[in-house]
Amino acid sequence: MPTGKSTRADHPAPLRNIRLVVEYDGTRYSGWQIQKGRPTVQAEIRRAVRRITGERATVIGASRTDAGVHATGQVANFRTSSRIPAERLVHALNFYLPQDIGVRQARDVSPTFHAQFDARWKSYRYLLHNSPTRRPLIRASALHVRPRLDLAAMRQAARVFVGRRDFRAFGSEVGRKKTTVRTIYRLDLRRVGECVIFEISGDGFLYTMVRSIVGTLIRAGQRRITPAEVRRILEQGDRSAAGPVVGPEGLCLVRVCYTPWKTRS
Amino acid sequence: MPTGKSTRADHPAPLRNIRLVVEYDGTRYSGWQIQKGRPTVQAEIRRAVRRITGERATVIGASRTDAGVHATGQVANFRTSSRIPAERLVHALNFYLPQDIGVRQARDVSPTFHAQFDARWKSYRYLLHNSPTRRPLIRASALHVRPRLDLAAMRQAARVFVGRRDFRAFGSEVGRKKTTVRTIYRLDLRRVGECVIFEISGDGFLYTMVRSIVGTLIRAGQRRITPAEVRRILEQGDRSAAGPVVGPEGLCLVRVCYTPWKTRS
Repeated sequence: MPTGKSTRADHPAPLRNIRLVVEYDGTRYSGWQIQKGRPTVQAEIRRAVRRITGERATVIGASRTDAGVHATGQVANFRTSSRIPAERLVHALNFYLPQDIGVRQARDVSPTFHAQFDARWKSYRYLLHNSPTRRPLIRASALHVRPRLDLAAMRQAARVFVGRRDFRAFGSEVGRKKTTVRTIYRLDLRRVGECVIFEISGDGFLYTMVRSIVGTLIRAGQRRITPAEVRRILEQGDRSAAGPVVGPEGLCLVRVCYTPWKTRS
Repeated sequence: MPTGKSTRADHPAPLRNIRLVVEYDGTRYSGWQIQKGRPTVQAEIRRAVRRITGERATVIGASRTDAGVHATGQVANFRTSSRIPAERLVHALNFYLPQDIGVRQARDVSPTFHAQFDARWKSYRYLLHNSPTRRPLIRASALHVRPRLDLAAMRQAARVFVGRRDFRAFGSEVGRKKTTVRTIYRLDLRRVGECVIFEISGDGFLYTMVRSIVGTLIRAGQRRITPAEVRRILEQGDRSAAGPVVGPEGLCLVRVCYTPWKTRS
């Protein structure tokens, strides 16, 4: 019955905006983004949010990781009218999420925060197991490459990618309208035991770009392509000349940052 | 047709003895040892040997790891009349083995070498993820313990186990006849990021002994048991007072040695 008086229901609390940091083992998922009839990370988080809040929230992810790609530091956000404190949301979400997805942090952020559009740079790690014999215990998180790779040659080729470049040759599903220019701030390689770890940070990545770059660097490490040839492929935008897109098992989104990149001295 | 002359077939080459180093992800196995109707690592290796050599070999393992326990350095041996060079055996075996088992090394050894009886000491690692929130990417190789553990208290309790002791209270299926005395040479703990890594080396381990010790040390780290109480349990052989047998996912057989333990200075 309307009374003319202002009640709580007339002025609902403004929606909260919750920022999550999420880790997942991407092995059994068709990537981050919701696709009908396929298991995706976004769908699982959306379902968990709904079970807790009763609301059909849109869960925005910083990066639309591909099928099979892992994350230790995916950032996501969603709006809710729930009053559950953020730190309790972590445990509530994990209760409903499958074991291969885990929320690591949850906190209230500004209503304008957008996990995807506000991201300034992202870091990915690619793990390569470089040994003549396989290692079952790391098979789900590393690509196995048997021939011993020449790291010096790979580092030389890696330098070609650093900076503001047109990555047309290293992206899949590249359209005509959207820009294919991206800035890579850093691309490091190091050998740790039998593994080679790639770390790549940039302001954005085309679809399959990291895995095309890694595939090309592996060719450089096998001395099947020279750094000069890599430069030519990049300049000419020739997709067919670039290395193969390597498997998703070695790729992991490790960090998403919302402040500008600062070169460390 | 017998000719009276000595032929190759009359004097077959003596059987070779092959020593393997094997890594496996124990998640889907009922342990090392062959059991009817269950998937085991020993059965898989035996099957692979048979496919390559046509022979029904006995595959001897240094350690009968339990269901779900992993290994990076299990040692095994088998006899064969095959003439395939040892280094080619690695790849041939891996070709027939499932992806979660991998032979890392194969070599010809003395005919008397016995992977189990000749072992002088073994090292196990136990990985514990000590954090309020779970980490999906290490869930198959680490036990998740939420409350922050007191490492100093755990190290103090760990000292009680080092040396020649009767581990009756820390073994399952302990019979009356067999000795339950074992020597622990080393039991180290260290924190690496969010994880606590246990390393334990000894001349032998009773069934579930490593996991009972880790379970007891976790209690010490939660200050639910004092080092003095741990000593009492060990001295009194009271199984019921010891900590629980923790899950197998954190346990990994890392090394088997065939020369005496030497204290590093």
